[in-house]
Amino acid sequence: MQAIILASGDELALGQNVDTNSAWLSARLAEFGILTRRHVTVGDELGDLVAVLREACAAAELVILTGGMGPTADDLTREALARVLDAPLEEHAPSLARIQDYFIRMGRPMPAANRVQALCPRGAVMLDNDWGTAPGLRARVGRAEFFAFAGVPREMRGLFEHYVAPFVRAAAGRVILTAAVRTVGMGEALVGERLGALMRRDRMPVVGTNASGGVVTVRIRSEAADEATARAALDETVRAVEARLGDCVFGQGAISLAGAVLKDLRARGATLAVAESCTGGLVAKWLTDEPGASAVFKGGWIVYANELKSSALGVPEDLLIREGAVSEAVARALAAGARARASADYALALTGIAGPDGGTPEKPVGTVWIALATPDGHVAANLCHFAGGREIVRERAANAALNLLRLALTPAPAASAPARTSP
Amino acid sequence: MQAIILASGDELALGQNVDTNSAWLSARLAEFGILTRRHVTVGDELGDLVAVLREACAAAELVILTGGMGPTADDLTREALARVLDAPLEEHAPSLARIQDYFIRMGRPMPAANRVQALCPRGAVMLDNDWGTAPGLRARVGRAEFFAFAGVPREMRGLFEHYVAPFVRAAAGRVILTAAVRTVGMGEALVGERLGALMRRDRMPVVGTNASGGVVTVRIRSEAADEATARAALDETVRAVEARLGDCVFGQGAISLAGAVLKDLRARGATLAVAESCTGGLVAKWLTDEPGASAVFKGGWIVYANELKSSALGVPEDLLIREGAVSEAVARALAAGARARASADYALALTGIAGPDGGTPEKPVGTVWIALATPDGHVAANLCHFAGGREIVRERAANAALNLLRLALTPAPAASAPARTSP
Repeated sequence: MQAIILASGDELALGQNVDTNSAWLSARLAEFGILTRRHVTVGDELGDLVAVLREACAAAELVILTGGMGPTADDLTREALARVLDAPLEEHAPSLARIQDYFIRMGRPMPAANRVQALCPRGAVMLDNDWGTAPGLRARVGRAEFFAFAGVPREMRGLFEHYVAPFVRAAAGRVILTAAVRTVGMGEALVGERLGALMRRDRMPVVGTNASGGVVTVRIRSEAADEATARAALDETVRAVEARLGDCVFGQGAISLAGAVLKDLRARGATLAVAESCTGGLVAKWLTDEPGASAVFKGGWIVYANELKSSALGVPEDLLIREGAVSEAVARALAAGARARASADYALALTGIAGPDGGTPEKPVGTVWIALATPDGHVAANLCHFAGGREIVRERAANAALNLLRLALTPAPAASAPARTSP
Repeated sequence: MQAIILASGDELALGQNVDTNSAWLSARLAEFGILTRRHVTVGDELGDLVAVLREACAAAELVILTGGMGPTADDLTREALARVLDAPLEEHAPSLARIQDYFIRMGRPMPAANRVQALCPRGAVMLDNDWGTAPGLRARVGRAEFFAFAGVPREMRGLFEHYVAPFVRAAAGRVILTAAVRTVGMGEALVGERLGALMRRDRMPVVGTNASGGVVTVRIRSEAADEATARAALDETVRAVEARLGDCVFGQGAISLAGAVLKDLRARGATLAVAESCTGGLVAKWLTDEPGASAVFKGGWIVYANELKSSALGVPEDLLIREGAVSEAVARALAAGARARASADYALALTGIAGPDGGTPEKPVGTVWIALATPDGHVAANLCHFAGGREIVRERAANAALNLLRLALTPAPAASAPARTSP
């Protein structure tokens, strides 16, 4: 069975809201072994909605539409389905009673407009909605089983689990399992080269890559007649991917690099502090994006002005004058100062030139020194050069810093693993 | 002119990633008066991609596709366009030279796989990409002008502004001018109420709103036969919008709230420091996203652990025990401590409960104290309650803090301006 997911709403087609329902539905369907061929989003225009609905129901066995089920004039899903079925809209008494009851329970009078939510195209089935006022709709349209739900994510999810999940569980002929292997420190092209034949399109499981914010994610999709076969093939491919990418792999699933570092620290019972100049709080922000970071992350210093590098973290003023703020010596002094003052086990420091101004021939924009102070009292330092604009330089520097710490927390890779690229 | 926006990628069709590019492109096209009829997303399957591309180019005058331009085997856009044009793929020497040059500047060897990014279907035009390695593609397909860009949002946006914006501006036949008035501190519904008849859909210039990250942007589109008429109408509507929204307006165009605050500080020759607990570096990150922030922003402290609140910023330990870290007294002490230790004119402090854990009946998740220390030695403090998940609470808190400072830097509003909502 293959699916097409539709979404309707001017706010989506005009880009005022981002459609998250379609991704959620596809991910959930994939777990039942159903491949989503397309997502299609249209505005609140009846002709467009009818055309898209007809096309989808001719092309797939399962079609789910979200949106256009509200009580206002721009909610056109009921009418569109009536047109496609060539059937009249009729008031469905039990649904009207449920809507009226909903408002009684809310302690509010029912606006007259909500009455249209009880209209049902003849031949379709109304689906009780326990999460809001708009009943769902289900109908056989051409070769497709068609479902329509309100666009409110909470209602849509409730209706999916209650009505679609049992249907697809019964109908699915195959199982699809997915996995994601997350990597840092290697560009997407190099990851692709290392994966080689694993990425052939005619291979099963299917392996693909995508890159975002310095992280390359390897996505794996395994299809089989039964779960055990799909799982075994998935696991085997995950292991093959991990073996080829060595210590660039920092985790599986949706984990962020900061999340992986926090996990490694937590496993060691170790704490972390940061001293950021060019990244201006980005490393700390990423770390504290993770709930529960406080168990491990003590905090840090944003030493943007040179005087703060001295007054807050004890970097000698003559060192700043002699070596410059963007220098190995200052990066080391910042890391050591942050570690000591926060009484942390580890401290990361970053000082560099994010641009667009401030570069020199010796220290061009993109030059960043990263230092890591470790529990043994040592401080390691790396010189990096990042290409790209201010935002990219800052993101890459923050990634490189977290990766430096991650590798320090990881046991040395086996001799057979490929060497990682220098940061 | 009407548009269809396409996106390709298994990670989108399978729901592993949410497509934000299509919404961004539609919103940007709407500013040029171009209506987007559909968004269509397909997986990395050549036949599907070719079919969708053909359909779209038969149905709209402008088609933009994002994704599938990377260097790996699942990047099929170049090949799909070649099929649709029924033309061979040829290596484009200048593009290959640019890609090679990109890697030389990065100081890394070019992986062999990146060579495919220089392939161009005969009859299409390669578009130089200053933001990454994948050149864009442009071609006449059927009745449509077709553009394809890498899916990385930063690259996609850069390519859009450089290649599509001038094309649609020229093709419009009329002069279209746009403006954006940026506001903070008032919800989108209230902004809409205040704008009233200015938002009628049959009015020209057209006025619309959208909300993102606590900032409500009022977008104005003025169309006329000549520039002078369009400009005069645009300016008049901008003034009317600003008059109705009073001191909620912090700027025009793409300026961020942090950018507006830095501008106000710069105009006064004043400096700023921050002390962040619950926001964990987000305020500092936003401030340092702005080039040139260092002239004004001295830096700050991320006092995530309570011991750092005491050791780094001098908050008395008994105060932390007696009042708790999330309290007015601690917020004030953090702001005063940061101002003194950074020798800054102003200091902002934030301490709160971002969640999902850590809430109590007295201090539920979303409780945030914000304090502002000013040059006169005073410290103001505000108690805020923000609804939403961890990310939303942190964003709203950071916005409220920057807005508190902005209003302190702004001359008192004229009596006729509407009162702002309490933070």
